[in-house]
Amino acid sequence: MRILSGMRPTGRLHIGHLSVLKNWVRLQEENDCFYFISDWHALTTAYDDTSELKENIRSMLLDWLGAGLDPERSTIFVQSHVKEHAELHLLFSMITPLSWLERVPTYKDQIQQLGKEGKDISTYGFLGYPLLMTADILIYRADGVPVGEDQLPHLEFCREVARRFNYLYKTELFPEPQALLAEVAMLPGVDGRKMSKSYHNDIPMSASPEEVFEKVRMMVTDPARIHKTDPGHPEICLVHRYHEIYNGEEVEETRVSCRGGRIGCVACKKRLAEKINAFLEPVRERRAYWTARPNYLEEILTAGAAKARAAARQTMAMVREAMGV
Amino acid sequence: MRILSGMRPTGRLHIGHLSVLKNWVRLQEENDCFYFISDWHALTTAYDDTSELKENIRSMLLDWLGAGLDPERSTIFVQSHVKEHAELHLLFSMITPLSWLERVPTYKDQIQQLGKEGKDISTYGFLGYPLLMTADILIYRADGVPVGEDQLPHLEFCREVARRFNYLYKTELFPEPQALLAEVAMLPGVDGRKMSKSYHNDIPMSASPEEVFEKVRMMVTDPARIHKTDPGHPEICLVHRYHEIYNGEEVEETRVSCRGGRIGCVACKKRLAEKINAFLEPVRERRAYWTARPNYLEEILTAGAAKARAAARQTMAMVREAMGV
Repeated sequence: MRILSGMRPTGRLHIGHLSVLKNWVRLQEENDCFYFISDWHALTTAYDDTSELKENIRSMLLDWLGAGLDPERSTIFVQSHVKEHAELHLLFSMITPLSWLERVPTYKDQIQQLGKEGKDISTYGFLGYPLLMTADILIYRADGVPVGEDQLPHLEFCREVARRFNYLYKTELFPEPQALLAEVAMLPGVDGRKMSKSYHNDIPMSASPEEVFEKVRMMVTDPARIHKTDPGHPEICLVHRYHEIYNGEEVEETRVSCRGGRIGCVACKKRLAEKINAFLEPVRERRAYWTARPNYLEEILTAGAAKARAAARQTMAMVREAMGV
Repeated sequence: MRILSGMRPTGRLHIGHLSVLKNWVRLQEENDCFYFISDWHALTTAYDDTSELKENIRSMLLDWLGAGLDPERSTIFVQSHVKEHAELHLLFSMITPLSWLERVPTYKDQIQQLGKEGKDISTYGFLGYPLLMTADILIYRADGVPVGEDQLPHLEFCREVARRFNYLYKTELFPEPQALLAEVAMLPGVDGRKMSKSYHNDIPMSASPEEVFEKVRMMVTDPARIHKTDPGHPEICLVHRYHEIYNGEEVEETRVSCRGGRIGCVACKKRLAEKINAFLEPVRERRAYWTARPNYLEEILTAGAAKARAAARQTMAMVREAMGV
């Protein structure tokens, strides 16, 4: 299967992203995977501040490699290095009814949401963002796209554009890519809200062992539990939630000890931090390996773009042929 | 001055277009001119029927060369051969408020107009058409754009986008291109309506002498004049209007003879057709020259695209630098 997925380079990734990346890593074992850093998409909401874009691309690439993406197996590249995405996006724009874009759920929500933060993103490019995503996917004629539930409407939009193109130009050029929904555990941040770099409540994938301890120390536990011997309520405790994900072996025992007041929160957090650190250790090692080889990073992206471009050009030749351009 | 202009490849041009082209020819004497055939623009209103696109491009190129555009002096190319237009259009889309596009005069008019003809062009690409035009112009950092009055709002839009880009990215990269309004005589078709290929009331630039005679023969004259000796009313006569444009030397004399009933409509039309034919003769010669050299036509477009691409890439390097992409 030809698989495609991408992420915006919004900065360092956190351990919540790691489960998404682990899925990508699994997929690369048996598929022809294209993974791209969507720097053009980043512009749809941050066109007015691009100062960190380059550093964000580098840091995201390191996180990807840290998670185990293998540049020998997967085609890893930066969206803007393959200009053909822009060409296909433009050609698709000619056949895509405006109303389809206006009706994409999330469109108006996001404008309002960011409007509250004082940001004006009601641009032509932001409206066209699902169409750019469509071009990103269809230019590789991908069969499958690993996405989160929130991205399903965008993928449905992509399929509609593929059908419309095939219908208008009497072709079967574009497959209708399928969503590959992976089970991804929703991980709250250390303060219980959604995990996000901007809330400072995330555990970065690149965190040092000390940082992990520090972040776990900040986690909210059962507020009713004051003394170690007070019976705890793991079902409302964030630390316990994390144990479920990162400490499957001991989660049962920890739960019982907590309820029985036999383990204090400090010790419980220490256990968790150790587990997260063990989990992150191979990620750190790979990250360090690549960080020490900045030239290789460049090479990965150059080779990835070349491979992606070759595939994209094949499709574009067929697109132009079909459209008679 | 760097000059840029383009035309949609809608099919054979008529003698009304010739005055526009004569202006382009004049401009190429002392300026660095880029003239392009905008095949992507053609898709905004005709994405569903591209069967004649390639032939239209060829035929328009012949008309241009026939008019006297010199591929040694001017850079003549096809828009879709320079992908950078699509890239700049995409980048501009990120900074362009949707409302600017929605407010472009002609936008809603044209949707309604074509809607009446049963054509649905309310697409994302049609809405973005002025932005694509903006990219076409600014990618060459053009100083001047020969346009008709009807295009002035689009050029104003282009200047606004240039200003916004320069402001957002603290640069002076883009000049604000100026409109070069040439005096272009509005020429009605042979039935008195607007001259248009689709009304079959045009005199094609590529018309043979016989066709010109035939078309002029069809022209509407003073309906009150039945016999040659009836006094005519040149001020309401289409043939006279044409004499004003194509037969400056004899127009005075013709007017007097007509009023005095001393020249019949048939003779008057014959005079006009001869003048138009004399006017078209060098155009025909040049057209025949190039028609006999199909390989050269290819070469002109290939060399033109290469030259345009080099200029476009210079701009794009500066754009990416300014935007931090």
